[in-house]
Amino acid sequence: MSIRIETLDAFFNPKSVAIVGASSNFAKIGGRPVHNMKISGYGGNVYPVNPSAAEIQGLPAFPAVGDIPGPVDMAVIVVPMPHVEPALTACIDKGVKAAIVLSSGYAEISEDGARAQRRLADLGAEGGLRIMGPNCMGVMNTGTGMIATFISAIGDTGPETGTISVAAQSGAFGGHCFTLARERGLGLNLWATMGNQCDVEFSDCLAYMAQDPGTSVVLGYMEGVQDADKLIEALEIARAAEKPVVLMKVGRSEVGTAAAASHTASLTGSDAVFDALLRQYNVFRPHSIDEMFDVGYAFAGGQLPKSARTGIITVSGGVGVIMADAAEDAGLELPPLPETTQERMKALVPFAGTRNPLDVTAQFINDATLMETMYGALLEEGDYESAVCFLAGVGLNPLMMKELEPSLEAVRQRFPDQLHMLAILTTPERRARIQAMGYLCYEDPSRAIHALGVLARYSAALKRGPSAPPPDLPSGAPRLTAGTAINEVEGKRILAAAGVPAVPERIVGSSSEAAVAAEAAGFPVVMKIVSPDIRHKSEIGGVILDVASREAAETAYRDLLARAEAHAPDARIDGVLVAPMVSGGVETILGVVRDPVFGPVVMFGLGGVFVEVLKDVTFRVAPFGIDEARRMIREVRGYPMLQGVRGAPPADEEALADALAQLSAFAAANADVLETIDVNPFIVLPKGEGAVAVDALIAVRENAGA
Amino acid sequence: MSIRIETLDAFFNPKSVAIVGASSNFAKIGGRPVHNMKISGYGGNVYPVNPSAAEIQGLPAFPAVGDIPGPVDMAVIVVPMPHVEPALTACIDKGVKAAIVLSSGYAEISEDGARAQRRLADLGAEGGLRIMGPNCMGVMNTGTGMIATFISAIGDTGPETGTISVAAQSGAFGGHCFTLARERGLGLNLWATMGNQCDVEFSDCLAYMAQDPGTSVVLGYMEGVQDADKLIEALEIARAAEKPVVLMKVGRSEVGTAAAASHTASLTGSDAVFDALLRQYNVFRPHSIDEMFDVGYAFAGGQLPKSARTGIITVSGGVGVIMADAAEDAGLELPPLPETTQERMKALVPFAGTRNPLDVTAQFINDATLMETMYGALLEEGDYESAVCFLAGVGLNPLMMKELEPSLEAVRQRFPDQLHMLAILTTPERRARIQAMGYLCYEDPSRAIHALGVLARYSAALKRGPSAPPPDLPSGAPRLTAGTAINEVEGKRILAAAGVPAVPERIVGSSSEAAVAAEAAGFPVVMKIVSPDIRHKSEIGGVILDVASREAAETAYRDLLARAEAHAPDARIDGVLVAPMVSGGVETILGVVRDPVFGPVVMFGLGGVFVEVLKDVTFRVAPFGIDEARRMIREVRGYPMLQGVRGAPPADEEALADALAQLSAFAAANADVLETIDVNPFIVLPKGEGAVAVDALIAVRENAGA
Repeated sequence: MSIRIETLDAFFNPKSVAIVGASSNFAKIGGRPVHNMKISGYGGNVYPVNPSAAEIQGLPAFPAVGDIPGPVDMAVIVVPMPHVEPALTACIDKGVKAAIVLSSGYAEISEDGARAQRRLADLGAEGGLRIMGPNCMGVMNTGTGMIATFISAIGDTGPETGTISVAAQSGAFGGHCFTLARERGLGLNLWATMGNQCDVEFSDCLAYMAQDPGTSVVLGYMEGVQDADKLIEALEIARAAEKPVVLMKVGRSEVGTAAAASHTASLTGSDAVFDALLRQYNVFRPHSIDEMFDVGYAFAGGQLPKSARTGIITVSGGVGVIMADAAEDAGLELPPLPETTQERMKALVPFAGTRNPLDVTAQFINDATLMETMYGALLEEGDYESAVCFLAGVGLNPLMMKELEPSLEAVRQRFPDQLHMLAILTTPERRARIQAMGYLCYEDPSRAIHALGVLARYSAALKRGPSAPPPDLPSGAPRLTAGTAINEVEGKRILAAAGVPAVPERIVGSSSEAAVAAEAAGFPVVMKIVSPDIRHKSEIGGVILDVASREAAETAYRDLLARAEAHAPDARIDGVLVAPMVSGGVETILGVVRDPVFGPVVMFGLGGVFVEVLKDVTFRVAPFGIDEARRMIREVRGYPMLQGVRGAPPADEEALADALAQLSAFAAANADVLETIDVNPFIVLPKGEGAVAVDALIAVRENAGA
Repeated sequence: MSIRIETLDAFFNPKSVAIVGASSNFAKIGGRPVHNMKISGYGGNVYPVNPSAAEIQGLPAFPAVGDIPGPVDMAVIVVPMPHVEPALTACIDKGVKAAIVLSSGYAEISEDGARAQRRLADLGAEGGLRIMGPNCMGVMNTGTGMIATFISAIGDTGPETGTISVAAQSGAFGGHCFTLARERGLGLNLWATMGNQCDVEFSDCLAYMAQDPGTSVVLGYMEGVQDADKLIEALEIARAAEKPVVLMKVGRSEVGTAAAASHTASLTGSDAVFDALLRQYNVFRPHSIDEMFDVGYAFAGGQLPKSARTGIITVSGGVGVIMADAAEDAGLELPPLPETTQERMKALVPFAGTRNPLDVTAQFINDATLMETMYGALLEEGDYESAVCFLAGVGLNPLMMKELEPSLEAVRQRFPDQLHMLAILTTPERRARIQAMGYLCYEDPSRAIHALGVLARYSAALKRGPSAPPPDLPSGAPRLTAGTAINEVEGKRILAAAGVPAVPERIVGSSSEAAVAAEAAGFPVVMKIVSPDIRHKSEIGGVILDVASREAAETAYRDLLARAEAHAPDARIDGVLVAPMVSGGVETILGVVRDPVFGPVVMFGLGGVFVEVLKDVTFRVAPFGIDEARRMIREVRGYPMLQGVRGAPPADEEALADALAQLSAFAAANADVLETIDVNPFIVLPKGEGAVAVDALIAVRENAGA
């Protein structure tokens, strides 16, 4: 089922909310949502529902949802589990569009609970009622004061408003994000926790927030993927809206259940695939909560650097070097200031470092104008798209800040198109004032730089625009069918027809045919036994290389049959394969595996130790276009092999990228039956000469199915 | 010159301090040290020196140092540069032991300044006066209130005392550390900034602090190494004292001036060597200031985990997974709780994760005893040496904390031998209270875990005890002499005599000798032309492999001479080398390069793409023992190659480690003349079969010298 944004609107922008199980005690779970709506100034109607009270927290209460006079957009269900189903039925009867079930006792508890949860889902689906939860902590829209949650962290003043939206599968994590945002002085916009996700999923909320104009960035938290297509749809929506997503996905699952015999299968873990998917959609995946908020805060500023060219200005030369080291890690560029600027700066502060970082030194304590002069020169003459300024503990010194703040304000106004960051220790009040000038403020300079690097990468991805679409399959591309065994020769023929080049080869049935075929292919040739029953040919001597003459081809034919007979007397023999030897080029491995979540996934790695020892591989969910294929190729550590080492010519990267994209299209088109493809080796010849599959195995499933 | 701890005592524990250039205005550089000593309750004598004042800040002032009645241990020099030399002379005449020169205008400014600085150094050396600075920010001992610095961050109350000592080459960085420590509520013990280091260096202060009983951890900051031997001496002192060091060394310098033609030279950069040295001494090198303080704070707690076995307890299952991911990154172990414990925990909270992390869930809000019960069970039954507990924003809720604090206190007292960390958002007051119970408190759980990982590694290194000493050189090990050319054969003979095994080989001068030598070596053999003038033999066809018979050896001899004659008619020919072919084994590269700072450095890497494409190499400063050699081998990414891949047997790691240690001893013994050694390939045979150098180049310098 695809995402239906319009049905989610009632969760985030309801005009009226019923609270079923409302309590007069605002410290109770049933009391808190009522209380929170009141203190946050929600402008819609709030209808407490409680059969044993006429008034709750100053509002008229109703015995049941059906008794409410006007229309109800959304209901918050806080009754004990046995009463949830009747409450939802009442909501459906009333025409309520959305229900948040805070009640717990479902799939998180027991198999009985899971059954009850499925009943909720069925009820909602039949009655046209969208359900968030059960076992969730609710939803908020800080802009409208619609605070449908019982988290205690809300406190007595309600949340601060802002542009960061939070979608968290886990209520506890969502609650922690709320607290952390407040501790960091960050305003939230929408906030939702999905709990057990009987209906509305993480992907739904992500998509809703991504298309919401009041949201500048979505912070997401997820533990597993329920519906891969929906997640991809949500990521597409975020990409189309150019809305940055910072997505915490926890856990590193081991190799999935994908089958076994190929290299690729032993290396695919769904976490690696998930990671690749996020890269593909320019989603930032943090590794810690601090990092999540550092980067989310930077995105929330709403400004992106136009390039990675960064200027650093510092009051400590040493910290400048720490920042330069961090900039390298973050992929930022620190081009030097022009010589003439450097000379002028040296004239101002003779012992300053002036290249970039530019070191104001402690001299600005004696001469407060220095900061404005030097910061201005940095941006005026350095052609940087962002600046990071380290001010140490100056922010804690009111006298110094009194002199410095006007300088900071002046520089910011003079350079509105650049992104400005400060690394400064200061008080919350002064921090707020400096942020209002348009500076992003961090305490630690390395963390500022790290966040800037993420923004610069995102900005570059936006500039590149959408990736090329996956290629079309060639018109003659075969369709795989379940339950068939595909030998090596057929495998290569299928791939070639699907647009993945393979060595031309023939199967022969006699020594004289072998001689003719070898001559036609051009010497030297390679000859192999072909049998569906002999998988590891080389172990039985079933491959003969460098066959250099007609006579040798005849001998080789006879030898191969004899070896097959000796080692595998019962094997069905399809013949002997004759193919030209491919010499030169770089050995690579292309693969397809079936990920339990994302379906067919394409793997790429270099041959030899790169895959076997270093696990140096990368993945993409199929299908994808040639741009993604090019990026894939450059992600592996062994990439220099393709650029040419030890005097070798550069390899035909375009041919390789094309093959990967074609393979992905073929895998996607056959997702229902495909198990694995292992193209090993896939030889990439020197630039302009193409690339060829030398060996290939295609395995299909016994029965078709998703 | 080696470190003389006793001469540094006057800087850190003076009984009397003269301030030369003291000012009545306590906001001025000359006024601040006087003021700071006063507010911090320094118990020794403070003597302001100023010819134009009789009293300064309530203390009697003296016209000159010589006029002070009693003895003076230390002088703080704050006069303008031209007056510094006379002031130091007066100090020497008075018998002052130590002088801190805060004045600037020296090497940081100009060549003239550098000359003046050298005069200060000479003056001090001749007069027996140790000098800190010039251009530094001074020294403090918070325990005695001896605050000989002008940094403004001191404020009106003086520093908080504690056990963290800070040694910072840069005054600005030292000042920032001071501020940051106060912002984080961390107490300092000793603090020193060295500035231009005309006499006292970073290494001196590091050594002093490491041996100081009031110091639990040293936070260091350095930009470059002045004297490598002194740094190593300081690190030895810290290691012997079992005092952890957290050392920020900024900047990544490019490949030094080391010469060029070998693989190794093109890979050694002094930063990689420095990094290896710190690993060797179990010094933690942070990459950011936050990381420096996160880890320094953890060490300052004074407790180390006895092993890497860690239990995680959390109020959010999701954050538990984030912590588990972080624990893997940090090298911690999270063994599961016993099944019986898990069942008991499940009975308490049916939907809790109980393996490890143990999830208390939000249920502890309803039942405050759960935390104590479950935390207690974790440590009682889980056999962990440390625990990290995530409490989210609970610390901001006074009601909940009132219930929780007694539980935390009880658990801490019940398990005094384990290291306890909390990840909690809370107020500074509550944080101080929880820390006083014996918890290390962090806001971000991943940062807590990262710091714990560093402590666990340090603890494991302490347990291992001191590394084995470098091996002795064999009695017949040759001594290299400057200005000699060493050919391949001599090179291998020298290495073999030095304890690095090499293939047995002979040089022959005729085809018949070749036949005899080949037969004696055992077929097949390899034959090579030997000439000091032909460096890249294989390019001229000067190497013939797989020579399998007497006849073939004779032919090969003639062919090699003919090729040499054709391609290099003027080359001096020493003969033809005959050696057995080495087959099987793993190709590695051993090297020695001369680091501009540390002298001879040993490099290790695997052959083929590992060094050439992946730059997968590691370094150690020579000499070192076999333990370090073993650790070196395991540091490279390609290490699995030595364990055996694709069914290959494990390689003889011990023989490899032995060769590395022997090579390091040989390099150190010849440090004065050695330029580079390149042993490539060094073949490591299967376990028990040893290892051999197949090719080796030794280059010595034209002239001996350090």
